[in-house]
Amino acid sequence: MVEGVSPLVDGGRFPIKRVIGDRVVVEADAFADGHDAVSAVVRHRAVGGDWVEVPMEALGNDRWRAAFTVGAIGRHEYTVAAWTDPWATWRGDLAKRLDAGQDVAVDLRIGALLVEAASARAAAAGAEEDAADLERWAERLRAGSAARSALDDELDLPMRRHPDRSHETTFEPVLGITVDPVHARFSSWYELFPRSASPEAGRHGTLRDVIDRLAYVDGLGFDVLYLPPIHPIGRTFRKGPNNVTTASPDDPGVPWAIGGPEGGHMAVHPDLGTIDDVDALVAAARLRGIRVALDIAFQASPDHPWVREHPTWFRQRPDGTVQYAENPPKKYQDIYPFDFESEDWPGLWRALHGVFEYWIDHGIEIFRVDNPHTKAFPFWEWAIGELKRDHPEVLFLAEAFTRPKVMYRLAKVGFSQSYTYFTWRTHKQELTDYFLELSRPPIADFFRPNVWPNTPDILHETLQLGGRPMFEARFVLAATLAAAYGIYGPAFELGENVPREPGSEEYRDSEKYELRHWDLERPDSLAPLIQAVNRIRHEHPALHSNEGLAFHEIDNDALLAYTKRSPDGDDIVLTVVSLDPKAARAGTLRLHHGALGLDPGRGIRATDLLEGGSEVWAGDGPRIALEPGRRQAMILQLAPAR
Amino acid sequence: MVEGVSPLVDGGRFPIKRVIGDRVVVEADAFADGHDAVSAVVRHRAVGGDWVEVPMEALGNDRWRAAFTVGAIGRHEYTVAAWTDPWATWRGDLAKRLDAGQDVAVDLRIGALLVEAASARAAAAGAEEDAADLERWAERLRAGSAARSALDDELDLPMRRHPDRSHETTFEPVLGITVDPVHARFSSWYELFPRSASPEAGRHGTLRDVIDRLAYVDGLGFDVLYLPPIHPIGRTFRKGPNNVTTASPDDPGVPWAIGGPEGGHMAVHPDLGTIDDVDALVAAARLRGIRVALDIAFQASPDHPWVREHPTWFRQRPDGTVQYAENPPKKYQDIYPFDFESEDWPGLWRALHGVFEYWIDHGIEIFRVDNPHTKAFPFWEWAIGELKRDHPEVLFLAEAFTRPKVMYRLAKVGFSQSYTYFTWRTHKQELTDYFLELSRPPIADFFRPNVWPNTPDILHETLQLGGRPMFEARFVLAATLAAAYGIYGPAFELGENVPREPGSEEYRDSEKYELRHWDLERPDSLAPLIQAVNRIRHEHPALHSNEGLAFHEIDNDALLAYTKRSPDGDDIVLTVVSLDPKAARAGTLRLHHGALGLDPGRGIRATDLLEGGSEVWAGDGPRIALEPGRRQAMILQLAPAR
Repeated sequence: MVEGVSPLVDGGRFPIKRVIGDRVVVEADAFADGHDAVSAVVRHRAVGGDWVEVPMEALGNDRWRAAFTVGAIGRHEYTVAAWTDPWATWRGDLAKRLDAGQDVAVDLRIGALLVEAASARAAAAGAEEDAADLERWAERLRAGSAARSALDDELDLPMRRHPDRSHETTFEPVLGITVDPVHARFSSWYELFPRSASPEAGRHGTLRDVIDRLAYVDGLGFDVLYLPPIHPIGRTFRKGPNNVTTASPDDPGVPWAIGGPEGGHMAVHPDLGTIDDVDALVAAARLRGIRVALDIAFQASPDHPWVREHPTWFRQRPDGTVQYAENPPKKYQDIYPFDFESEDWPGLWRALHGVFEYWIDHGIEIFRVDNPHTKAFPFWEWAIGELKRDHPEVLFLAEAFTRPKVMYRLAKVGFSQSYTYFTWRTHKQELTDYFLELSRPPIADFFRPNVWPNTPDILHETLQLGGRPMFEARFVLAATLAAAYGIYGPAFELGENVPREPGSEEYRDSEKYELRHWDLERPDSLAPLIQAVNRIRHEHPALHSNEGLAFHEIDNDALLAYTKRSPDGDDIVLTVVSLDPKAARAGTLRLHHGALGLDPGRGIRATDLLEGGSEVWAGDGPRIALEPGRRQAMILQLAPAR
Repeated sequence: MVEGVSPLVDGGRFPIKRVIGDRVVVEADAFADGHDAVSAVVRHRAVGGDWVEVPMEALGNDRWRAAFTVGAIGRHEYTVAAWTDPWATWRGDLAKRLDAGQDVAVDLRIGALLVEAASARAAAAGAEEDAADLERWAERLRAGSAARSALDDELDLPMRRHPDRSHETTFEPVLGITVDPVHARFSSWYELFPRSASPEAGRHGTLRDVIDRLAYVDGLGFDVLYLPPIHPIGRTFRKGPNNVTTASPDDPGVPWAIGGPEGGHMAVHPDLGTIDDVDALVAAARLRGIRVALDIAFQASPDHPWVREHPTWFRQRPDGTVQYAENPPKKYQDIYPFDFESEDWPGLWRALHGVFEYWIDHGIEIFRVDNPHTKAFPFWEWAIGELKRDHPEVLFLAEAFTRPKVMYRLAKVGFSQSYTYFTWRTHKQELTDYFLELSRPPIADFFRPNVWPNTPDILHETLQLGGRPMFEARFVLAATLAAAYGIYGPAFELGENVPREPGSEEYRDSEKYELRHWDLERPDSLAPLIQAVNRIRHEHPALHSNEGLAFHEIDNDALLAYTKRSPDGDDIVLTVVSLDPKAARAGTLRLHHGALGLDPGRGIRATDLLEGGSEVWAGDGPRIALEPGRRQAMILQLAPAR
């Protein structure tokens, strides 16, 4: 019997996710009726490749474990096989009989039959030497002349090379692993509006301006540059500044109202440039180790060419008009959703798949998908499945801030990463609970968080009210709690924090509706902190994954203390953040040494990664004091003092 | 999407177990992409019957729940179906539009299309009146004359009777429920050796003697009478008293060494009587509401007729002899195991199945199966499956004291009840942990404990050393912690506690090897306590199931306090047991009122079910004092004082 296999997502219905180079640790319960010895293996392969077997180790209580490394990007598979092992049973029993001084003549004859059969299996497998060896052993056993030596490794080893697996059971179904590039788990994102990237105030920014901006983004230490939609923008029902419904002819409109006479999802807004500029941007970014992520928003402005070319892809109202987007009583008449229940759904699905293919052809490897939860799950499972089969390096970030089970389902059907509720988790207990949930199985096996302190849609109240200290706190939390995080800049580093109106999470004078011009050289920019933290992230493997997260006791409700530890255990990074933007806070830290593999008796060397210097902690927990304006957070490396 | 269904055993591979009359509570996550309203139902049926649907209630966070009652013994099935509900979506949106004062002319036309379609569904289903009603409503909506009244129940109710379920998803696989008679969960077992049932010392007891003993067993309050094997006993390698390997001709042998010239598993030992005596015993027991359970031990003495008739059902050794049972270096030469890997396994399986059928024909409805873990799991799944299909009332108790996962697997493949580790769980924390594990999902969904303070094979050290107080303690624990329990008597009620040798769990002068004569009238018999506790068990629904178990804080390591509460919440029984057989113990009880639905502010009336009388507890927890020789345990009914 093989059961209780882990990792396992919904009984094997969905693959687990890993990145290249990960060790996949598999456990299972394996047992048989009766008293026979059991052996078990994990079987794994890259899809299309040969199966490889790794012997499992018995952990006690019928639990078994083995690990293997996934060495290539793409789809892998694994399962567990186990069998009753007559040789191991016989050998164990013989030892007990000999210890008890029993006559083992008949037992040796039984053993000879087992060895003979193994010899035949060896011969059939072309292992001539083993076959001959085993045949000689069988003769000795038959002759009754090899009682104690029958326990020798010299016999055991070839027997174990040719086991009798006639009573083998294999766990079903075969389980999937989506193996992604490392940056699927560890990446630092920077979002900017290309149209605001002009160095001159008032001029519409271009993709060429974004190329010039790469040095800045690179200097901050980001490795993914994410652009809102770069397509032509509709004119019908175009929105003006601050989302007013009456736009003037000069208003640039909302980039998510996709499509105009110039084209739709596979066109570039003429004011931004051309497809050649996209290619140039992707190439220039690649030279700096930065990947460009595009926004895929599957919806159309009333002026999108598909509205005319494929009317069946949109729902018609009884009055003959096209159904616009709604969230009653709100109406979004500048946006037409696609009708995933269209009779021509195969045509629609193929066209949407084609949008991804078009941009992949132009070097895009990361897509941030807008509101995937309002499209059909089966579409995503199909489209992402096809795309990852043909381009296994391509990644998909789900922009879904909907209910938890819907977000998890999107991850299961294929999204590589997902936005999270981080933005609204502001208290100590909320942050602790949420990140423990995200960093442990079963969630961590299929859902990868990408956390953002702000987005163009969300300026949280804490940032509106907390000023620069809160920007620092939320930034450090994002960059150290999660292996993947991002900021919407330059609004973030420049501390943009005025809402459209009190109680709103929208920015006033949002770039979603108008051009902005940003002074990147402002002395109060958070750029130095961002640069430092991104450097620490790159240098510390502890921060490259989410699994090694542990929270620690600190006796102050506004202080949050947590460590991350690298899979090999060698790198430990402690972060302490004050959630209070107004007052100084202090507390005594009580490290959970067991979770860190640190012996407090030996002392702990704490190296300050932000401000430099180090000290040794011994005995009682250290006192941590943080003060708005002086320092809002500490990032320390911990190591044995000696 | 439908996922996260509970209860669920191994993804639906195995059925859950319930008893007739149980309410089955089913939960699931059900959700859809987008903003559409979702509806969900649980679908259930007795196998072969019609499916019945029960609407599920939304619990929040996309979780849904419904319950249904299983009203017949046998196999049932259930699953969950959910669909997006365009009518509920439209209706909810209309309310918001009207509240916002919007023009809803086009929306009413959309609603008319939904109502028209429902009218057509109603007509197709033969609901002429609904069809006509809905057609009239559609006309009103088309005419735009029914804005606010479109929200009336008068329209909503027929719409909900004829929902559009074209986008329905059903959870797979369909899930099974084994519905057993009530005594599968709640039963009190008494084991005795018929050959020791003679009223005269020295005479071999008979089944007729057992009929005479029924009044005693009934008087103690037991409802299952379990008999060790009643078949002819082998003579070859017969064991003598205290398991010596040299038996005298007068020694009766071990009942588990089944088979002699007189027959095998379908014969009655001549000294016990005839098959007619079995029929008479079953009938006499039934008149008292007692069921007779037989022991099924699938193994043979060397003298079993099948050894001669079916040599292929046994494994041959290279010297031509039959392989006897072993646990190296121990040899059990009086026992031949069946070879479940025999080439004639189909013949063996059918023959073993036939043994059950034979005894079912003679009125036996409960089988205690000896060492099922040394036989093939697939055999049990097949045999129990066939037998329960043809005789759904028949129950199987697994006598397996092997590793936990093996015991759980036996329960999954079909055993109705199982022996447990209760005998070896003697400390407060051990008992607490173990019974919490057994009384909660997932274990409680498929595994039913049957707990025994002693068996003919296990005289635990605590009973050897603890004397009568420990017998009282272990008895009350067994009878109140588990809905099903048993004792091996009269050894138990007469306090038999001498081991074969120090350190052994075997009884000295065990009935397994010789006849015994018991003085049931001894004044120190535990019979009065047993009688009282069995009466309490019958009178209190709280003790009829395992799920309502809660442990409570009491500040003494030797005092264990727990309650059971009936599913309707009305009956609460508190038991406090002292695990110390030597010294008086006292402690303050802190009831977990929340788990009991009791308001301490109203006072709690505690009625002493063993000694009579009652008192009201208010404010601080009551002080409980127990003293060996005076009282070892208390059983109290708790109820609101006013």
